[in-house]
Amino acid sequence: MKTETIVLLKGDGIGPEIVTEAQKVLQLVSDARKEANDMEFEFKDELIGGIAIDQTGSPLPEQTLNSCLNASAVLLGAVGGPQWPRPATPENPHPPRPEQGLLDIRKKMNLFCNIRPCIFPCESLKSKSPLKEEIVKDTEFIVVRELTGGAYFGKREEENAEGVAYDTIIYSVPEVQRITRIAAQLALAHNPPYPIISIDKANVLASSRLWRRVVTETIQKEFPTVKLQHQLVDSAAMIMVKNPSALNGVLLTENMFGDILSDESSVIPGSLGLLPSASLNGWGKESNGLYEPIHGSAPEIAGQNIANPIGTILSAAMLLRYSFGLEREAKAIEKAVAKVLDDEEHGGLNVRTKELGGNATTTEIGDAIRKAL
Amino acid sequence: MKTETIVLLKGDGIGPEIVTEAQKVLQLVSDARKEANDMEFEFKDELIGGIAIDQTGSPLPEQTLNSCLNASAVLLGAVGGPQWPRPATPENPHPPRPEQGLLDIRKKMNLFCNIRPCIFPCESLKSKSPLKEEIVKDTEFIVVRELTGGAYFGKREEENAEGVAYDTIIYSVPEVQRITRIAAQLALAHNPPYPIISIDKANVLASSRLWRRVVTETIQKEFPTVKLQHQLVDSAAMIMVKNPSALNGVLLTENMFGDILSDESSVIPGSLGLLPSASLNGWGKESNGLYEPIHGSAPEIAGQNIANPIGTILSAAMLLRYSFGLEREAKAIEKAVAKVLDDEEHGGLNVRTKELGGNATTTEIGDAIRKAL
Ligand SMILES: CC(C)[C@H](C(=O)O)[C@@H](O)C(=O)O
Ligand SMILES: CC(C)[C@H](C(=O)O)[C@@H](O)C(=O)O
Repeated sequence: MKTETIVLLKGDGIGPEIVTEAQKVLQLVSDARKEANDMEFEFKDELIGGIAIDQTGSPLPEQTLNSCLNASAVLLGAVGGPQWPRPATPENPHPPRPEQGLLDIRKKMNLFCNIRPCIFPCESLKSKSPLKEEIVKDTEFIVVRELTGGAYFGKREEENAEGVAYDTIIYSVPEVQRITRIAAQLALAHNPPYPIISIDKANVLASSRLWRRVVTETIQKEFPTVKLQHQLVDSAAMIMVKNPSALNGVLLTENMFGDILSDESSVIPGSLGLLPSASLNGWGKESNGLYEPIHGSAPEIAGQNIANPIGTILSAAMLLRYSFGLEREAKAIEKAVAKVLDDEEHGGLNVRTKELGGNATTTEIGDAIRKAL
Repeated sequence: MKTETIVLLKGDGIGPEIVTEAQKVLQLVSDARKEANDMEFEFKDELIGGIAIDQTGSPLPEQTLNSCLNASAVLLGAVGGPQWPRPATPENPHPPRPEQGLLDIRKKMNLFCNIRPCIFPCESLKSKSPLKEEIVKDTEFIVVRELTGGAYFGKREEENAEGVAYDTIIYSVPEVQRITRIAAQLALAHNPPYPIISIDKANVLASSRLWRRVVTETIQKEFPTVKLQHQLVDSAAMIMVKNPSALNGVLLTENMFGDILSDESSVIPGSLGLLPSASLNGWGKESNGLYEPIHGSAPEIAGQNIANPIGTILSAAMLLRYSFGLEREAKAIEKAVAKVLDDEEHGGLNVRTKELGGNATTTEIGDAIRKAL
């Protein structure tokens, strides 16, 4: 029987509380797999973000990175808070920022593929969207964002003597190929297969023209059954509000556009607290991945046992699906979440945290989900 | 008495129909100013876009550019259509694209400031927004987009032998200063002054850090009474859907982010056909400007007298305001538009084109607005 290590990066703010609830859910799965003599999970806590800065001086300490590189998967809470960066001093004129830990871990674990589903976790929450219900009701897409290229990691120069600063949006053929392949696998994992909608600014950017050409060729050659469309990023930002279900499928895009569009999409389902994400370095069991809710560290409500752990618990479901191929277990968690969240009319338990109009605590939500499992 | 030349670039698709209606409105103003012995408008038609490609080989012929450079203001309809670019041939492997005419005229007229109000043209249209009415009802902001810098005009290289392509996001201190000054003038033109919300990605991009520093210093030194906030572009894209009135004010941003955010914002008021834009090369009467509706050339409905001319007529109002300082006339047009569009309950005439549920033709809308004036 194999022991698989999952690194927990609880981070700052509400991070510890929400990761703890997700860990308990993963423990249930571990117990069941152990019973079946298949495998068990071993959890290992490491530091990241602000707390890591305070304890080690770095937002991504060497030890954390090494543990993550050697783990089977990583579950992260959230990083950041108003106390960071710490004030600049003569000895430390550029105190480190917690988010740098995130950018560094992406690059060093080679997590080139970020996946963010924009799907309602349950029926009755459709009325919580800022969009009209008739407009959002059939929305179901997955944003696939390239995460280690583009302007985020291209050459840049801070303001020079002439008062000029620049960044470089740069992409290579293999970078676009590998992210396209994961998008296609995700499209095919759905039944019937999702179409891929690739988003770029090919009418202006050279990097987007390369992107469009390579996406097209990769799909044509390697995944001829997958449908592919192209959409300009400005139109996509518009359609996402006007008629989001027109984007149903896999939205495949480069790093910066993906940052903007995935955040835009995240408010569609009505509560940021509910949405998970995965960042992968490949496809299949052999790949490593970092899983985290899309929301921030919410320092204003930290330590009060009122934060919503569902985004983290659904991230744990993604972890089971993408890092361990445990599709059945992932679906079971998603179903349990829907059951807990949905109102009675839709066969649910209507157990919700405050921001969704309920009064359940963080631990109560976790308990209810485990019970529903 | 001065004669002021306005160049009309009708362009493709519905362009000719909608510009004609706006021209008639401008003619009314001209007649009135002439009566007052102040000035009159002279109109001059020039080619741009697809029709210019077909008649001259270029989407922005030399003659068009010269007329625009010598004009007091330019009013544009729309460019593009499915027939362009024309198929590539051995002699012409890269047939010109109509949009290139737009990019070229921006650069050659030095139209560095693009202004797009996100404001409901009348009360009763608030129910047409894809967002819930209680969420959008107080939305009132103006997007100010830098239009001649950033990734649009930075150095780029198409795919090289190593299979790499790149673009450069580049900004200089004076470029950021001049656009900040116009944003501040716009903020002060409102009573009480709008706050400025500057949007960037300073946690990642060097060009954004320069942007943030120069915006901050310019406002502090030159416009100390104007309130300034900063917002990351990903959060802004999110807030625009979740709670758009939190962005009320002037949203100041660089070219690419402005492209995405202004399109995202444009669906908030419910009909693209209603929204105007201005692109300026400075502030005050001495500056030149190009005015155009934000929608496209809608070739599928061209020539049927059913396109909505209101976006173009409101662009003509902006032309009067920004190129001639005719604030009173601009306001009168905006009021006439509101009167024509609004339903009876709100004191309006409920004259609307098809996409807004009415059955008025392009010319009927134009006539109704002129009558209401
Ligand atoms: C914190 C920031 C650098 C990061 C990004 O822009 O990638 C965040 O917005 C995200 O999307 O994970
Ligand atoms: C046509 C295109 C090049 C243009 C742009 O990206 O600037 C358009 O989207 C716009 O916003 O005017």
